[in-house]
Amino acid sequence: MEVKLAFVGFGNVARAFARMLESRRAMLDSRYSIQIRVKGIATARHGSIITPTEINLLEAVDLVERDQSLVSIHGASECADSLDLIECCDANIIFETSPLDPTEGEPAISHIRRALARPVSVVTANKGPVAFAYRELNELAKQNGVHFRFEGTVMDGAPIFNLAEFCLPGVRVTGFSGVLNSTTNFMLTRMEEGASFEESLADARTLGITESNSDYDIDGWDAAVKTAALANVLMNADARPNEVRRQGIRGVTVQKLKAASQLSQAIRLTSRAEMIGSALKLSVAPEPVALTSPMGAARGTSNVLVLNTDLMGDVAIFETDPGVEQTAYALLSDLLTICASLRNG
Amino acid sequence: MEVKLAFVGFGNVARAFARMLESRRAMLDSRYSIQIRVKGIATARHGSIITPTEINLLEAVDLVERDQSLVSIHGASECADSLDLIECCDANIIFETSPLDPTEGEPAISHIRRALARPVSVVTANKGPVAFAYRELNELAKQNGVHFRFEGTVMDGAPIFNLAEFCLPGVRVTGFSGVLNSTTNFMLTRMEEGASFEESLADARTLGITESNSDYDIDGWDAAVKTAALANVLMNADARPNEVRRQGIRGVTVQKLKAASQLSQAIRLTSRAEMIGSALKLSVAPEPVALTSPMGAARGTSNVLVLNTDLMGDVAIFETDPGVEQTAYALLSDLLTICASLRNG
Repeated sequence: MEVKLAFVGFGNVARAFARMLESRRAMLDSRYSIQIRVKGIATARHGSIITPTEINLLEAVDLVERDQSLVSIHGASECADSLDLIECCDANIIFETSPLDPTEGEPAISHIRRALARPVSVVTANKGPVAFAYRELNELAKQNGVHFRFEGTVMDGAPIFNLAEFCLPGVRVTGFSGVLNSTTNFMLTRMEEGASFEESLADARTLGITESNSDYDIDGWDAAVKTAALANVLMNADARPNEVRRQGIRGVTVQKLKAASQLSQAIRLTSRAEMIGSALKLSVAPEPVALTSPMGAARGTSNVLVLNTDLMGDVAIFETDPGVEQTAYALLSDLLTICASLRNG
Repeated sequence: MEVKLAFVGFGNVARAFARMLESRRAMLDSRYSIQIRVKGIATARHGSIITPTEINLLEAVDLVERDQSLVSIHGASECADSLDLIECCDANIIFETSPLDPTEGEPAISHIRRALARPVSVVTANKGPVAFAYRELNELAKQNGVHFRFEGTVMDGAPIFNLAEFCLPGVRVTGFSGVLNSTTNFMLTRMEEGASFEESLADARTLGITESNSDYDIDGWDAAVKTAALANVLMNADARPNEVRRQGIRGVTVQKLKAASQLSQAIRLTSRAEMIGSALKLSVAPEPVALTSPMGAARGTSNVLVLNTDLMGDVAIFETDPGVEQTAYALLSDLLTICASLRNG
């Protein structure tokens, strides 16, 4: 089974995925009979290329990491931009990881809409499209008989969407709570240990885990976008991030954390969905949680999601100290899920 | 899609599943186009029956709960025993939940072997067959083109085996640790709160969570059987429970728990698999864990399993205070998984 891929966006996540693909070529062939061919790569600053043959992925990674243009790659033709590449590339699956405007989900939504309309399957690690346009994009994919997958958008490669889709058949998700933003959780953990807000933020920046604008983490926007994405997919909502009642961590002081600790509690920036009567209430806010609980167990950059269900009670999934490798794995996981589906017809 | 079921064993779990099936008939039809027909029920003390038509499941539940024989059910013929029913019933899937001899996995293994050989698909909530005969039974099912599923054998309906099979494609499980026995965990939590060993055991008995022989919980046998089952399925081992190095909780005192607590630790009866060089080491033993960690978060009857993987780091799944409903859901989940596979050909 030959699978032709294209990349829209070739940043840290896409390049980690590219390396993972290259290092797993033999496994993909022997275990899944999948042969990968890369047919196009679009970047914002290093050119966009397609080829009728195959792009050497490690050569492309190397060029971008040496800040050089991709257009020097042998046999490649240059495209005008991402949308041009999406229109022209000879791919079965496009991997969308372009830099995101978190307030409206663009340009990822336009990229994905264009790809699904061609139709070509899409895998994305961008949460914006799932938070701002899930219903439309999912319908478009279905109508056109292609796939739209996005496991990496919440909790990196930890299976959240796949868990609900493949492992909880017959179950209705009635609500959820989770710790989904690593930056604020890392900061709260540092502050529990006595660091100030400013020191904690500086440490998070040093670790490279903050969004380019750290207000986006601190004021709960990132968590709100993820909350909307989860509600849209897991609870069939049609919510937008600005409908999530949102409170960030600026009001959480070292004193409050100490007081919570004396009650065997911690404070977590909690993403929550609950049905109040027939209305779905979505919120992001600092909440006290028992230290010895799944939510309390998420320290530092770790994440957790607790699903409330009708038939299976509460099930939580927990990811320990994720990094870019875990997000890269999410893309691989989506690739393999699509290939399994193609194989089953 | 008509699916014909038979029950071998009709105890608490099977009857909870029967009630769940009845209450979800409309959902099964509308969402999955599945119509259920029950064709046979084998019990140890209330007779074994088959029918060419359909057994009224709620009538059967009611008869057994009033301690009456099933042979009075209209249109049913009596079978000699479980194996006779397995041989004669007109079923696509047999649900095996017979009372288990935990030291050798019988009679469940014989039941399943006979069913798969017919061939008829099998769903079981009995961990013995997976711990003692997984490789043989799995091969037999594959050779005969039928299914052998067992999600309920470890952590009830929390998706463990399905998570690894459907949600972590391309991943190798390199080890695991978990809190898998509710009785001992409940006892350790009660002892943390100051109760004695004997009081804690009495409380567990009152709650109805102990095995019929509570030594089987306390001395780590139940956890060892689950450890072997997990290793066999998730790590392609061919282990037996007696190969699991095993230490129960008799040596854990209130004093030791208090000392651990002062270090922000708890003691959990930990099931563990790790590769030491090329050798797989399996163990069950009381181990100190950080209170604020996935393992520490499993208090009372809650369970947790942490999977160590090559591509996805550590992923943990957590089940809060499971009951018989969660095990019943595991059977429903396996039923739906088999139906999805049948539908895909």
